[in-house]
Amino acid sequence: MASHPLSLSFLLLSVLISSVSSSSQPIIQLPTTTDRKSNIDDDLYCASWHLAVETNNAGSWKQIPTRCESFVQDYMTGPRYMSDSEIVANYSLAYAFSVEIGRNGKDAWVFDIDETLLTNLPYYQAHGFGSETFDENSWDVWVDLAEAPAIPASLKLYNELKQMGFKIFVLTGRSENQRNATAKNLLFAGYTDLDRLILRGPSDEGTLATVYKSEKRSDLVNEGYTIHGSSGDQWSDLLGFAVAKRSFKLPNPMYYVS
Amino acid sequence: MASHPLSLSFLLLSVLISSVSSSSQPIIQLPTTTDRKSNIDDDLYCASWHLAVETNNAGSWKQIPTRCESFVQDYMTGPRYMSDSEIVANYSLAYAFSVEIGRNGKDAWVFDIDETLLTNLPYYQAHGFGSETFDENSWDVWVDLAEAPAIPASLKLYNELKQMGFKIFVLTGRSENQRNATAKNLLFAGYTDLDRLILRGPSDEGTLATVYKSEKRSDLVNEGYTIHGSSGDQWSDLLGFAVAKRSFKLPNPMYYVS
Repeated sequence: MASHPLSLSFLLLSVLISSVSSSSQPIIQLPTTTDRKSNIDDDLYCASWHLAVETNNAGSWKQIPTRCESFVQDYMTGPRYMSDSEIVANYSLAYAFSVEIGRNGKDAWVFDIDETLLTNLPYYQAHGFGSETFDENSWDVWVDLAEAPAIPASLKLYNELKQMGFKIFVLTGRSENQRNATAKNLLFAGYTDLDRLILRGPSDEGTLATVYKSEKRSDLVNEGYTIHGSSGDQWSDLLGFAVAKRSFKLPNPMYYVS
Repeated sequence: MASHPLSLSFLLLSVLISSVSSSSQPIIQLPTTTDRKSNIDDDLYCASWHLAVETNNAGSWKQIPTRCESFVQDYMTGPRYMSDSEIVANYSLAYAFSVEIGRNGKDAWVFDIDETLLTNLPYYQAHGFGSETFDENSWDVWVDLAEAPAIPASLKLYNELKQMGFKIFVLTGRSENQRNATAKNLLFAGYTDLDRLILRGPSDEGTLATVYKSEKRSDLVNEGYTIHGSSGDQWSDLLGFAVAKRSFKLPNPMYYVS
């Protein structure tokens, strides 16, 4: 977001410098007032659209608005994404410190994987940052590579929670037949010693993410766990039933899972 | 947010122009790298802090971070606040259109007042945009004035919902002894023909906002109303029990009500 006005300023500076050094032929054309207005309008609209997505005001959505494609790209590759992820992790950790950990080993934290523990940015960078229609084949190839990096702030949070004595449950919409690749990728990214990796089994196929994830959290509660915290980039990771005492929404303007 | 980098660019431009026209004595001192870095860091931090507040990741908070005071002022007085409010109203309206309104007059929408139907910006502008400790006396004087303007997008939404046949319930944390001033203010701002104005009665005093508002929504449900939508600037307007089918969070980085 902030990067647009900054680039604009450097553009203006370059134009000014070039027109000072050679007044007849400026190398870069100044944007017309209309262009500039429509850019500012797009930035404003897309920032508000993004906020609506993150707060769940937007509800279910299928596609990044066309005018926001470059906004999403700038967001995901610029400093805001990392900063937003860090602040979420900071608030998660501050809350975790307020939890009194019992001696029964039943204090739990639930993490989603994609865009929560791992970032699939290398994949989405090659696929329009979510603006292209989802392609299951290329996605499966990417998952099998097992090379998605950790979101640094999430890895730090994960390690601190482990050290504090939380049991860590990783609950993903990926399917059982991706277990090996997923476990390998988590290790590759630095996530060691997780307590359980829960994937969609055959009986979970076709279940809405909110219901599937609620059912699995419910199983944990029935096993005696207290789910203190839950971290996910989708509202379907966090809402439903058997919800955590505190839920933490990581940013994701690229896609929506219902 | 976007205004800082822009002002920076104009500052840089001015400096460049002045140093070109009179190279020995630039009128404006260039900010040092440290100053610039810390401004950019503050903008980034405050944008992320704001997102954490709006998504409820921040949980309960008492004070705007000192470094974000000018961010909040810029946000509230700049185009982002209006844009964010408009986009929330647009999503609310799109959802409302998907509701099938029955003939029994029991389809309801619940609105909060402060920073939802009305904006208290004139008050907060005179009181540090929420950065000052809340002062009940000056607040009561402001409420009695009954001059808080409508948030334009909310007024438009309100009128469209009424026209569609929704019953409109206005549910506020203001107390019964502010009923006259509040009703007068709503009329002043253009909100006519609301179906019920619900304020905190003596028996609601000391109840947490989330519980008080849930209880009042529960009363409506017991009267046979279906609460399709709920609009509020606080998560305590939206969470708890008897929640609406869809909740819409209006932006408010100035204060938090638990």
